[in-house]
Amino acid sequence: MQKLLLSFLFVCIISSKGIYAQNEHAFKVKDFYEYSLDHGQCHQWLQYLSDSIGGRLAGSQNALDAVDYTFEVLASMPGVDTVYKQECTVPRWERGAKEFVEIIYGGTSLALNALSLGNSIGTGDKGIQAPVIEVFGLDTLELLGRKNIEGKIVFFNRPMSQTRINTGYAYGEAVDQRVHGASRASKYGAVAVLVRSMTTKHDDLPHTGVQSYQEGVEPIPSIAISTNDANKLHNALESYPVEAYVRNYARLLPDTISYNVVAEIRGTTHADEIILVGGHLDSWDVGGGAHDDGSGCVHSMQVFANFSAIDYKPKRTLRCVLFMNEENGLGGGKKYAEESNRKGEFHLAAIESDSGGFTPRGFTCTATAEVFPKYLANLQEFSEFLDPYDLYLKPGGGGADIGPLKSQNGLLIGFKPDGQRYFDFHHTAADVYKNVNERELKLGAASITSLVYLIDQFGL
Amino acid sequence: MQKLLLSFLFVCIISSKGIYAQNEHAFKVKDFYEYSLDHGQCHQWLQYLSDSIGGRLAGSQNALDAVDYTFEVLASMPGVDTVYKQECTVPRWERGAKEFVEIIYGGTSLALNALSLGNSIGTGDKGIQAPVIEVFGLDTLELLGRKNIEGKIVFFNRPMSQTRINTGYAYGEAVDQRVHGASRASKYGAVAVLVRSMTTKHDDLPHTGVQSYQEGVEPIPSIAISTNDANKLHNALESYPVEAYVRNYARLLPDTISYNVVAEIRGTTHADEIILVGGHLDSWDVGGGAHDDGSGCVHSMQVFANFSAIDYKPKRTLRCVLFMNEENGLGGGKKYAEESNRKGEFHLAAIESDSGGFTPRGFTCTATAEVFPKYLANLQEFSEFLDPYDLYLKPGGGGADIGPLKSQNGLLIGFKPDGQRYFDFHHTAADVYKNVNERELKLGAASITSLVYLIDQFGL
Repeated sequence: MQKLLLSFLFVCIISSKGIYAQNEHAFKVKDFYEYSLDHGQCHQWLQYLSDSIGGRLAGSQNALDAVDYTFEVLASMPGVDTVYKQECTVPRWERGAKEFVEIIYGGTSLALNALSLGNSIGTGDKGIQAPVIEVFGLDTLELLGRKNIEGKIVFFNRPMSQTRINTGYAYGEAVDQRVHGASRASKYGAVAVLVRSMTTKHDDLPHTGVQSYQEGVEPIPSIAISTNDANKLHNALESYPVEAYVRNYARLLPDTISYNVVAEIRGTTHADEIILVGGHLDSWDVGGGAHDDGSGCVHSMQVFANFSAIDYKPKRTLRCVLFMNEENGLGGGKKYAEESNRKGEFHLAAIESDSGGFTPRGFTCTATAEVFPKYLANLQEFSEFLDPYDLYLKPGGGGADIGPLKSQNGLLIGFKPDGQRYFDFHHTAADVYKNVNERELKLGAASITSLVYLIDQFGL
Repeated sequence: MQKLLLSFLFVCIISSKGIYAQNEHAFKVKDFYEYSLDHGQCHQWLQYLSDSIGGRLAGSQNALDAVDYTFEVLASMPGVDTVYKQECTVPRWERGAKEFVEIIYGGTSLALNALSLGNSIGTGDKGIQAPVIEVFGLDTLELLGRKNIEGKIVFFNRPMSQTRINTGYAYGEAVDQRVHGASRASKYGAVAVLVRSMTTKHDDLPHTGVQSYQEGVEPIPSIAISTNDANKLHNALESYPVEAYVRNYARLLPDTISYNVVAEIRGTTHADEIILVGGHLDSWDVGGGAHDDGSGCVHSMQVFANFSAIDYKPKRTLRCVLFMNEENGLGGGKKYAEESNRKGEFHLAAIESDSGGFTPRGFTCTATAEVFPKYLANLQEFSEFLDPYDLYLKPGGGGADIGPLKSQNGLLIGFKPDGQRYFDFHHTAADVYKNVNERELKLGAASITSLVYLIDQFGL
């Protein structure tokens, strides 16, 4: 009987200790939320990055200013062991003077809201005037053949689907026109391309973004027009033969040097297991790169600030990495992984925030097939801590900058804020500080901090 | 062996039929999403309600115009069996000419951004000038007593918590100052009250909202000031004695008549089980009542439009109810329940949308203790259809307008869009059409349609 009673007491002690331990983690998560919401500085940092510095195209002075600024902020945080700039090679593309695009039809002409796409060449002062032919996909080019395309301006007008709930998915379905349209059309003799902006919104804002010339194909100017203007051009083509005149001054200069910014808090007991949080410092040149991806940078910095504020000594090594050149070649992400592999490092987890500063919805994750099932099973343990904040954890993409780390067999995690308004701003002049809500941004930082904390405490 | 094979085949047939049936529901939910996103008119309806008609305070001509407009839209939908206006008595309060509030201290004066609270009396032309005393809660008044309060203007300055994740909860914690501040202060001889606006945002927008005079207590003017101005007043009080001068022209007129708008699609097999969707037509007079609650009205109308578009014949009776006077007395909600009880009706479920037009997060629900466990268990069945859209279903509030239906022992459900930006707009001049995102609004309508469909198909 006494033995039974002792066993019972023992079980009670163990259980209550278990509950106490679980509560301790729940309280810590709550602390991170409260600190972020009450004292988080991420919104002010974003104001500096986005309004004071502005657009931060890799290779530009603005991008270097952003490197210096974020380096200083991270270096000023107590408890951060190391901050350094990691050199990487980046392309240098310049938009040059404002683009001019007009369409001429039925005895009238109409100027369109236009932006050269990243890496596009320019027409120079003379510009190019040619008849317009509309297509809805890359494969249509082959059907039309050289006889229909040669000497023309190809207008890619497949809209992003309105009905995909996941707007990122809709973007993925439509963006091939923007990335590969120019090269594919050039093969059949096109002289330039116009591309419908990548957004579900109907407005006058043109959206830029990367486009890529295939080697061995003659590069031709590649320009985005707003969705409203794409609809106008479509309507004009229904009734008239339409010519377009395009003039732009974009040019690609020789590669140059820029930097990732890396900060580190060394782990106390498992220093060789790295947990990375990161976003990308560079942005397109128009707007202020506020959602894309100033938000991801200040999220990541706020994670470090949260740990710094409570003097948290992580078991594992925490890294905050602000990548350079995500938009235009992934120079920084590739360099970071290369250096990491060279040193034989192991990233147990890498969390990328590159989907804007909106209300957090959760995290998606991926890994190599051999380790993913184990990670997925272990992640179940975190649900009880994340459920109160309505955060999901499910399979899905990690992110472009952390992608090259996959071969280290850690877990790659994408932070997923609500995506419904992301493509209202993405790569436009409207991607500015005032369009990022302070509470939503701070909640994002708190969510990521919580996940980093749980991985540090429980492992994977 | 043959018997075993037959059993196996039988199981296969049953299973595949089961899977087919489940898939059918999943596809139907998908259809509703696609129709809403591609063809939903809710955003245009909102533009009319919010921009063309504008603020729709119960008792005003604008509110009557909104009744007529929504009646016409609902009556034009094929498949809707009945649309009618249900008379109800509502208060009639008028703001009158623009409020003026200034504070005088240290040899200077500062005009504040102010709005009379709903039901407040006015000072008239003369205004009131008196010393200001700041308090952070209703109970402090008793501690201070008449000797400290008499002849003064009481300034209620307890902020909404920044750290509550659920902003509605933070609102609930702070709003007693706005609702009861005037009466409570008047008991101790205060001559007017100023109330910090109910928002976590730091800006210059004053937020109005209902305040209620206790019977038998002398009414005194009750005015909201913006959070930035509340902070300025607080700072002034730290260094100086401060007087305030307030002048407003608000007045309560005799009760008048207005209307709920009720539309119905009669059920084919369980017509006596009603499923209600609703929002409230009235709003505050400033702004356009776009999030609060034009969005809830057009959500509910879109639910009917979605069913109408696919010629859906519900098993149960569907009602779309646009309530009058939620903001200022619940006249419409009470009247609707009274009539429904008188007819011996049973609302199996009532879904209220009154939390804005933001991205859907899920639904909270409640019922009387005797039936709630059964409903909760049955709701589990819906998860598989709602999970793909990241929609939760959990216990919580239903809504103010449907509250009086609780005694019918049905399930009361609150639609919950993301709430992080709701109090940026709530009861302000900024609650206008352009601040409601089209995709987010349409997704809300699709979510509610899906839940109505599932309840109609499966029961509860």
